[in-house]
Amino acid sequence: MIARPGVALIGCGRIGKVHFRTLLGRPDLCNLVTVADANSEALATVNSMTSRVSTTTDVDQVFADPAIHAVVVASSTETHASYIIRAADAGKAVFTEKPIALDLEQTDAALEAVDKAGVQLQVGFQRRFDSGYAAAHCRIQAGEIGKVEMIRDAMRDPEPPPLKYLARSGGLFRDMTIHNFDCVRWLMGADPVELFAAGSALTGREIDRAGDIDTSIVTLRFPSGALASIENSRRSGFGYDVRTEVFGERGGLLIGDSRQTPIRRFDSNGVHEDHQYFFLERFADAYRNELVAFLDAVSNESPVQVTGIDGRKALQLAIAAERSRELGIPVRLDDQLRTISITERINANA
Amino acid sequence: MIARPGVALIGCGRIGKVHFRTLLGRPDLCNLVTVADANSEALATVNSMTSRVSTTTDVDQVFADPAIHAVVVASSTETHASYIIRAADAGKAVFTEKPIALDLEQTDAALEAVDKAGVQLQVGFQRRFDSGYAAAHCRIQAGEIGKVEMIRDAMRDPEPPPLKYLARSGGLFRDMTIHNFDCVRWLMGADPVELFAAGSALTGREIDRAGDIDTSIVTLRFPSGALASIENSRRSGFGYDVRTEVFGERGGLLIGDSRQTPIRRFDSNGVHEDHQYFFLERFADAYRNELVAFLDAVSNESPVQVTGIDGRKALQLAIAAERSRELGIPVRLDDQLRTISITERINANA
Amino acid sequence: MIARPGVALIGCGRIGKVHFRTLLGRPDLCNLVTVADANSEALATVNSMTSRVSTTTDVDQVFADPAIHAVVVASSTETHASYIIRAADAGKAVFTEKPIALDLEQTDAALEAVDKAGVQLQVGFQRRFDSGYAAAHCRIQAGEIGKVEMIRDAMRDPEPPPLKYLARSGGLFRDMTIHNFDCVRWLMGADPVELFAAGSALTGREIDRAGDIDTSIVTLRFPSGALASIENSRRSGFGYDVRTEVFGERGGLLIGDSRQTPIRRFDSNGVHEDHQYFFLERFADAYRNELVAFLDAVSNESPVQVTGIDGRKALQLAIAAERSRELGIPVRLDDQLRTISITERINANA
Amino acid sequence: MIARPGVALIGCGRIGKVHFRTLLGRPDLCNLVTVADANSEALATVNSMTSRVSTTTDVDQVFADPAIHAVVVASSTETHASYIIRAADAGKAVFTEKPIALDLEQTDAALEAVDKAGVQLQVGFQRRFDSGYAAAHCRIQAGEIGKVEMIRDAMRDPEPPPLKYLARSGGLFRDMTIHNFDCVRWLMGADPVELFAAGSALTGREIDRAGDIDTSIVTLRFPSGALASIENSRRSGFGYDVRTEVFGERGGLLIGDSRQTPIRRFDSNGVHEDHQYFFLERFADAYRNELVAFLDAVSNESPVQVTGIDGRKALQLAIAAERSRELGIPVRLDDQLRTISITERINANA
Repeated sequence: MIARPGVALIGCGRIGKVHFRTLLGRPDLCNLVTVADANSEALATVNSMTSRVSTTTDVDQVFADPAIHAVVVASSTETHASYIIRAADAGKAVFTEKPIALDLEQTDAALEAVDKAGVQLQVGFQRRFDSGYAAAHCRIQAGEIGKVEMIRDAMRDPEPPPLKYLARSGGLFRDMTIHNFDCVRWLMGADPVELFAAGSALTGREIDRAGDIDTSIVTLRFPSGALASIENSRRSGFGYDVRTEVFGERGGLLIGDSRQTPIRRFDSNGVHEDHQYFFLERFADAYRNELVAFLDAVSNESPVQVTGIDGRKALQLAIAAERSRELGIPVRLDDQLRTISITERINANA
Repeated sequence: MIARPGVALIGCGRIGKVHFRTLLGRPDLCNLVTVADANSEALATVNSMTSRVSTTTDVDQVFADPAIHAVVVASSTETHASYIIRAADAGKAVFTEKPIALDLEQTDAALEAVDKAGVQLQVGFQRRFDSGYAAAHCRIQAGEIGKVEMIRDAMRDPEPPPLKYLARSGGLFRDMTIHNFDCVRWLMGADPVELFAAGSALTGREIDRAGDIDTSIVTLRFPSGALASIENSRRSGFGYDVRTEVFGERGGLLIGDSRQTPIRRFDSNGVHEDHQYFFLERFADAYRNELVAFLDAVSNESPVQVTGIDGRKALQLAIAAERSRELGIPVRLDDQLRTISITERINANA
Repeated sequence: MIARPGVALIGCGRIGKVHFRTLLGRPDLCNLVTVADANSEALATVNSMTSRVSTTTDVDQVFADPAIHAVVVASSTETHASYIIRAADAGKAVFTEKPIALDLEQTDAALEAVDKAGVQLQVGFQRRFDSGYAAAHCRIQAGEIGKVEMIRDAMRDPEPPPLKYLARSGGLFRDMTIHNFDCVRWLMGADPVELFAAGSALTGREIDRAGDIDTSIVTLRFPSGALASIENSRRSGFGYDVRTEVFGERGGLLIGDSRQTPIRRFDSNGVHEDHQYFFLERFADAYRNELVAFLDAVSNESPVQVTGIDGRKALQLAIAAERSRELGIPVRLDDQLRTISITERINANA
Repeated sequence: MIARPGVALIGCGRIGKVHFRTLLGRPDLCNLVTVADANSEALATVNSMTSRVSTTTDVDQVFADPAIHAVVVASSTETHASYIIRAADAGKAVFTEKPIALDLEQTDAALEAVDKAGVQLQVGFQRRFDSGYAAAHCRIQAGEIGKVEMIRDAMRDPEPPPLKYLARSGGLFRDMTIHNFDCVRWLMGADPVELFAAGSALTGREIDRAGDIDTSIVTLRFPSGALASIENSRRSGFGYDVRTEVFGERGGLLIGDSRQTPIRRFDSNGVHEDHQYFFLERFADAYRNELVAFLDAVSNESPVQVTGIDGRKALQLAIAAERSRELGIPVRLDDQLRTISITERINANA
């Protein structure tokens, strides 16, 4: 039992600030020692809010400080793996924003370091900590709807991110669908055996030119014969749209339909409601809950709820989806989620 | 202009009785002359309701009667094509329940007869006449959500039909998904160029043994790059579920979520609502509307809204879906919705 | 048992046409013999739809015709009572649109004639036959929410009727709230013992000048201590609004929230739905159901479900509401729903 | 401008703990110096969470400490007024839980002290800071629905509080309806001129014996003729129910219908949703927002959004409601919300 473990936050941008507020507001669960960010402007916010947390642009201090038991990594994606490795080597538990890395090589290097050091690693798939998703998972596990037969998991962003972001994002499947891959695996309680991905670039020329897509449907098949469909779009035209439907032998669960304000307007054109605009609002509680769960695991030296393997598997599915889209055919996956060679499959189907 | 055309109804089973009530209740639009059914018990219902409509177990009378301008075919599926041909040969307009036939050969024979006779033929895709679907189609056409980018079309039955029905149904894609194929084509305003079908038999051994499936996801790609996903299940575990979502550049439309009674119950377990149980309730108005539209077309000698070609194209897509599922790969379709040969495609992808 | 009783319809205006369609479409339940209307234009519609129903501008024919077992009165309000009396004197069952009359004297004359003749009389409180209200009543009776403690019953029209209509309407309480008085009595299963009415004229000068109101809240107290609140408005600004909430010891029921088309639109301004526009659409099924129930009662010579006494009691409550509003204080009611004198009450409270 | 004002919290029970968490989590907005509670057990929670906040069972320390600029009073109701007076006398700004006091005498004493000292006083009507209510208020002010014509404001608790609580609560109108009185005044933008209250004791003998009620409907009339209806129940049988409907010339707003988890379940019995259980969950954000607004006002030395006069007026309306219920007639209010004498009114109506 580590009471109120010392924590460092690396990265204090958009999502980093969210985590900062959570850590600062829970002095009962942790002692936020340091916030590190290469950008000193990001640190100004921290300094304006509290004088009890040290700030630094030198991330080395974090790994050297023995008062720090756990590190929360919210820096830019390409730095995640190296910070995980350095934290692990220093014997510190790690919470990392998704993804661990954009390729399997770096992901595996990070997982090996964590494994060798025997530290905890939690990946930021925050949906698992949303009250709606958590309740659905719990009810499915309890057998409320019987054996799961189909899942439909939709996620749409209000509008495409800047091209600069897209260029470093890893593409639609690794950047966006990766959340859905984790979610579907988790709700189904199994890994898929086959996957077919269809995608298009519909929002404009730039995405197409970059070889990326903005609209996709991925179909997955599971060992039981259960099926899943994942819909993604970079531009919904109406706001953030995260809804998941799970159908079983005895009924279904519909997660989503959240509203920013519980208000309905009636006028001569009909009935009108607001909806959630974007992910920070939709998942505000989930972002708090995932850090609390991580801090609990660190304090109690107990297993985390979303492991590095979960992070790796979601990435594998993203890579398989890219392969399926390139080839124009489904890809089969073995029990390690490795793509089974196409030659073999074509022969089997000939 | 044919004022109050004479109409015959062939087949007075479950759906036939629905059409009978509509025709009987609209003496202003038609003159229901005869109801024919091989089963004299089905006719007893007609006789108990009115003495002004003749009944017969001899369908030949229908085609011979010059007072009959139009025939409504609601008999069992395998008889549709031959009745359409006989009605067309006798110069009568035809409304037929879907499908025209379970194979392309019979379908084409029926369409040729209709073509040669120059009579009207309307196919019973009743969804197009549902207030929700019709409003959605109208709004899409008006450009309300911009160019359509994705459609999700789900249909679930409460529970599987009897095995006897299944054996003659033509299989999931020709019997059930055929509605969705028509709906997606209609809402998209285009024919697909590619289709991938995944299916499973999850509700029990019998369906599997019969080589049929009860659960499927079909992905379609359209010339513009737009994508669609069709979900079907023979057994929802909770009731009839017909919902369609259409996403465009500037927003989305969600069709469905109908309730049998507008009542909500609050108790210590939460908030509870009824929902529609099955298709006769869900589409009661649509079944009335489609016949009214047909009678209007007959009276005004104007084109029908759902043609034989629509019926044929939906069947082609069902056949393509079967092929995709058997081969385990997507099938490409030419502009006549003919499957492009696999060999060619494999070579292209190799 | 009277199989397919002969029926006459008196009055073929807006609501009369609705009843005409129901009667015509159910030849299994009745034989619609005659439609009478002083206005020959209204009859033109009937003649254009069918040649099997005779039409007349001479209502005397209806009462003289022995083939007519039952009369449906849908003429203007001031004629209801005299037609009920004439039908009863001729031994015919009567369905009458609400109200029986706008004052108690004529109402009592009609009820006495009905009583003396021993014929059936059903009053057109169509809400009782709406699937939502009927289900709610049934659940309350079955004890699903325990003893009823509070009811909130709201009804709003989209916009005020023409002044000409208002002038002959009997005022807000007798014309509009009368539906709510019946509904609350029926759902509560008891008559109120006290009533307080507050009202205002907010939509314009004309209503005020005519001494009428367009906006009101009536509070009722029942013998058990249960309370009810009735809200009315002649002008909602958004469409027809009929919603009722019933709260009991163990939960609540919310009736309403109906939508004209089951479609939701998502755009950058939020989520949008249509709603029902007016009573003919909202209660289309209820209008059919109430006539079917009446025809069943006539055929089976069994009691009707909404009696003349129900019609009288609703009128008594409307009159009590007017009195409460004029005096500015609550009025108490005895077990015959007669107002207990104010002098007595003031003394009691002094 | 007072940057990060020093704050003391008095009372750390149920609602006090909520405020404690808010104050602790916003070191950028305030410096939480001390938590005082007569009950040392309540303070144990504070000490377990942080060592940076001093705790004391001696409330005198709060008023003597010059580092404290503002006091948050969350102690038991009967202590509110005296703490407000002592804080005001010491020149400190005050946020107090509602009500200021259970009678007008103490309320006025507190308001005078505040007035004399020229300090800020904010009353804890947290609804005004709920996103739904705040949006509704804003839209009404912007004229979105035109002139307000009717408000319906319902509040139901899941089940009655302990008798011990009830005995000291001041009765239904002063304890519970007081929230609705404030809410209706605020949304209407005006004070009522008349009020009629009906109430019953339905949940059990104890409430009745104590002379209190558990179920009530209050009708209010405003100078414009607009009407409002307030429904209250101590026992809904299904959970916490806070819903408000505002109707204007051009439409309506419905506030409420909140759900604890955005999840819907479909099974063979229908569609099911959770709902909010009680006020701490329903108004979690509002409780945070009201303290943030108070701290902003203290820092910027600007007016608070819910004043002592607002608190006093809500209490006056509660007292008027009691009087109306006792007398069984409506009470009229002058522009100071003083009850106009009954004798005068009876004479006027005689």
